[in-house]
Amino acid sequence: MLTRPDVAIVGAGPVGLAIAWRCATRGLRVTVHDPAPGSGASRVAAGMLAPVAEAYFGERELTGLLTASAARWPGFAAELTAATGREFGYRTDGTLVVGLTGDDLAEARRLWSYQQGLGLPISALRPSQLREREPALTPRLRGGAVAPGDHQVDPRRLVDALRVAAERAGATLLPGLVTRLAEVDAPVVVVAAGCGAAALTGLPVRPVKGQVLRLRAPDHRPPGFRHVIRGYADGESVYLVPRDDGEVVLGATVEERADTEVTTGAVLRLLRAAVDLVPELAEYALTEATAGLRPGTPDNAPILGPLPGRPGVLAATGHHRHGIVLTPVTADLITDLIVTGQPDPLLTPFTADRFH
Amino acid sequence: MLTRPDVAIVGAGPVGLAIAWRCATRGLRVTVHDPAPGSGASRVAAGMLAPVAEAYFGERELTGLLTASAARWPGFAAELTAATGREFGYRTDGTLVVGLTGDDLAEARRLWSYQQGLGLPISALRPSQLREREPALTPRLRGGAVAPGDHQVDPRRLVDALRVAAERAGATLLPGLVTRLAEVDAPVVVVAAGCGAAALTGLPVRPVKGQVLRLRAPDHRPPGFRHVIRGYADGESVYLVPRDDGEVVLGATVEERADTEVTTGAVLRLLRAAVDLVPELAEYALTEATAGLRPGTPDNAPILGPLPGRPGVLAATGHHRHGIVLTPVTADLITDLIVTGQPDPLLTPFTADRFH
Repeated sequence: MLTRPDVAIVGAGPVGLAIAWRCATRGLRVTVHDPAPGSGASRVAAGMLAPVAEAYFGERELTGLLTASAARWPGFAAELTAATGREFGYRTDGTLVVGLTGDDLAEARRLWSYQQGLGLPISALRPSQLREREPALTPRLRGGAVAPGDHQVDPRRLVDALRVAAERAGATLLPGLVTRLAEVDAPVVVVAAGCGAAALTGLPVRPVKGQVLRLRAPDHRPPGFRHVIRGYADGESVYLVPRDDGEVVLGATVEERADTEVTTGAVLRLLRAAVDLVPELAEYALTEATAGLRPGTPDNAPILGPLPGRPGVLAATGHHRHGIVLTPVTADLITDLIVTGQPDPLLTPFTADRFH
Repeated sequence: MLTRPDVAIVGAGPVGLAIAWRCATRGLRVTVHDPAPGSGASRVAAGMLAPVAEAYFGERELTGLLTASAARWPGFAAELTAATGREFGYRTDGTLVVGLTGDDLAEARRLWSYQQGLGLPISALRPSQLREREPALTPRLRGGAVAPGDHQVDPRRLVDALRVAAERAGATLLPGLVTRLAEVDAPVVVVAAGCGAAALTGLPVRPVKGQVLRLRAPDHRPPGFRHVIRGYADGESVYLVPRDDGEVVLGATVEERADTEVTTGAVLRLLRAAVDLVPELAEYALTEATAGLRPGTPDNAPILGPLPGRPGVLAATGHHRHGIVLTPVTADLITDLIVTGQPDPLLTPFTADRFH
C-alpha cells in the first residue's frame, strides 16, 4: 500500500480484524498493524456467545451490549462465511448451567434468578431433564438451567476467517509492532490492541490472567455432549465447550496476574471440577494447557469510541471476558462512527470519558 | 567408519550408550544405531535410583540386581563426569516414603516391612520426623519411612553425557533405523532397543505406558524439598523427584497400553495426590505432560545376555521401570561378556532362556 490509509487499526485480534473487514467493505482504505495476528486473548478464549449466562449482578449496561451483539451473531456469521467460504465452529446448541452440590446449585440459581428477572431466556431444569439433554452429565447433579440462546464459535478459526475477509475486502495487514500511536499515519487510528492498549493510550486496561485447557475425545469421536456446559462443582466454576472435531475447551481461571504460566493448582481445580461434572472426560486426552491475558477494565465493560483529547483516535478494547461475543457490535459501532461521524447511542455507556 | 565394527548396538538410550562407552573404552570398535538417541523411555523417566523402595514382593532376584547396580552408581557417575566434564543431576539426598491416610500408611508399611525383612536400609519415621526432614510435606501425613540409599539422576542429562562419553571413547553413532538385525554387519550385535526389541528379536517385551508431569518451582527457586518423595495418597501412588534447577518430576501411571497420549484422568490423579502430599506444589508451574512406553517383560526383570539360537546376538532390554538404575550393571555385565566370552553369574537369572 503506497497511499495513506483512511483507517489504521492497531491489533489484529477478532475485534481489530472485524473492524478492518467492515471498514474495507465500506470502501475505506485500511491497514491493520500486528506482528502476530490472533495471538492475544482470542488464542486462549473458548468462544462462548453467552449474553445470558454472562449477565452478572451490577452490569446491566454491559448485559445490554452483550445481548445486542449476540443478536447480531447469526447475520455476522452468515456474512463472514459467505465472504470467505470458511466455517469457524459457529454452533447454536445452547448452554446448560449445572450445579453439582446443593450449595453449587444455590449459587447458580441465585445468578439465573437475577437473569430471569432481567427477562433473559433461561429456564430451570430438574436433574432428570438435564441428563435427558446430556446423558454425559454426572448423575450426582442437583439441578440446573438451560439458556437456549447462549451459543459458541471457535475463536482461532474465527480469526482466520476474519483475516481472509479483511484482506479480500482490501485491507492490508502490516507486521510491524506499533509502540507509539505517532508511528501510525492515518486520519483515523483505532486502538484494538487488547492489553496493549494501556501502554498506547493510558487507558485503564489491565491484564486478567486466564488458564484454559484443551481436551480431545478418544478415537476421533466428537465429545459426548453438544451443549456448552457451565458448571459449579464444589465451589469451583468452570465451562466446557464441545467442538465438532472432538475438542473440548475447559476453562477458566480469573487471576489478577500478568504472567502466562500454567500452574499445577489451576490445572488441578479445572480438571477436578470438569471430571466431577462430566465423568467421561477422564478418558479424554489433555492436548493443551495455556494461559492468556484478558484486557480487563475497572467496570468489566469495554472501552469503545473517541479518546478524550486525542482527535482521530478511537478505542475498541477492554473486552475482558467478552471479546468474541462483542466482536460484531464493536465492529458495527466503530465502523458506523468512522463512516458517519455520529456515535450510535449504544456507544454512550462505553466511551472512555466514563473514567474521568 | 569404514572398517567393520566389533560390536554394533541397536538403540541409543542410556543402556545402549553405556554399553557403547564401556566397550569402546575396552578398545572395541563400536557402532550405535538409533535415529533418535534418548527418545525412548529414558526421555520420560524420572531417574530414581531406588533399589530399596522398588523392591517388590516376589521379585527377589530383580531386587538383587537393582542393589548391585545401585552400588555401582557412585563409581559410574564419577567416571562419567571425569570422562566428559558433565554433570547429570546425580544426587544422594535419599528418599522418603510417606502415607497420607491410615490406609495409605498401612499399604506403605506393608511394603517397607517386606523390604526391611530383606535386610534393606529403610526405617520408619513418625510424622514429626518426616516434617522435620521436609517441612514442605503436608501436616496431614500419617507416617512414613526413609530410604537413605535411594538416590536420583536426571535421565535426559545422563543420556547427553553418555553420548559424549561413548563418542569420545571412539564409538560411532549412526542415525539409520534398524528394522531387521540382518541389516547390521558385526560379529556381536547388542539389542538395546527397549520396546523395539520385540519386533527385532521376538522377545516378550511389551510397552507399559507411563504418564509423567514436570513441574517447576516459582521465581527460579529450587523446589521446597530435597528428598525424593514416594507417596501414597488416598490410594494413589506417586513419586516426586526434585532437581537443583527447580524442576520436579511427578509420576507415574502404569498402564497396559501402547499409546503415548496424555489423559485428563491421569493428570488429575497425579496432581491431586502430589498437591495433597506437598501443598506448595499447587503454586508450581506445570511445564510438561508426557507419556512414555517402558519395555516390560513377563516377570518385570530385564533380559540380558545371549539370545537362544541367535549366535552373536545379545539382549540388553526389558528394563521396565528400572532402566536408569540398572544402566551401570547392564553395561558392565554385557561388556564383560563380550570381552571375555564368559557370562557373569549375576546374569544367570536374567537371560532370555528363562522364558522357554
